[in-house]
Amino acid sequence: MATMLAVTDVSPGATCCAPLVREPISQPEAERVAVTLKALADPARLRLLSIVASSAGQEACVCDLIEPVGLSQPTVSHHLKILTEAGFLSRSKRGTWAYYRLEADALSTVAAFLTA
Amino acid sequence: MATMLAVTDVSPGATCCAPLVREPISQPEAERVAVTLKALADPARLRLLSIVASSAGQEACVCDLIEPVGLSQPTVSHHLKILTEAGFLSRSKRGTWAYYRLEADALSTVAAFLTA
Repeated sequence: MATMLAVTDVSPGATCCAPLVREPISQPEAERVAVTLKALADPARLRLLSIVASSAGQEACVCDLIEPVGLSQPTVSHHLKILTEAGFLSRSKRGTWAYYRLEADALSTVAAFLTA
Repeated sequence: MATMLAVTDVSPGATCCAPLVREPISQPEAERVAVTLKALADPARLRLLSIVASSAGQEACVCDLIEPVGLSQPTVSHHLKILTEAGFLSRSKRGTWAYYRLEADALSTVAAFLTA
């Protein structure tokens, strides 16, 4: 029986044998990766992720994310929740505000999966 | 005025300065990347791409793609069209059948864009 490869098992260095091009991926694996890619495949979420990623310490207060993307706070919070659930951001509360930090490994894992 | 970076301008080797983490990406850039990621963010398309990518010469006949994914020929052709339009596959006709070849650079470009 073939061992099923989880996306989280992928070493970012293994570009010679990236999962997508090494052998046909299974349906469960395809479904997992599709969910992760869908979390990224939105202009507002890409911009939010990019703003957090390029902030000092790769962290930003939600209060500093609303104006740059020009969306309402509930909409921004919705997008941040999707990115957090997909593992691209982590969230911590300090005082009144929530802070979001880039989880760079999650991005690297997706990149390694796609590298041909 | 800032120069707008097109995804196609990204060198796969530039992991230290990947666009997504270097500076906040623009709305047009975010929209372009989101379209590309949406083309990938589907289980059937990921499986089709993976089958083509792991075939000899990274090329496969559409006739060999239908059974493995268990979808109808029109559905498979629809997904292949989306992948081709997004630049991940190229298509050539030989005799009765269409053949699809992996465009590995397109995958590498996305990977380079996401690498943190």
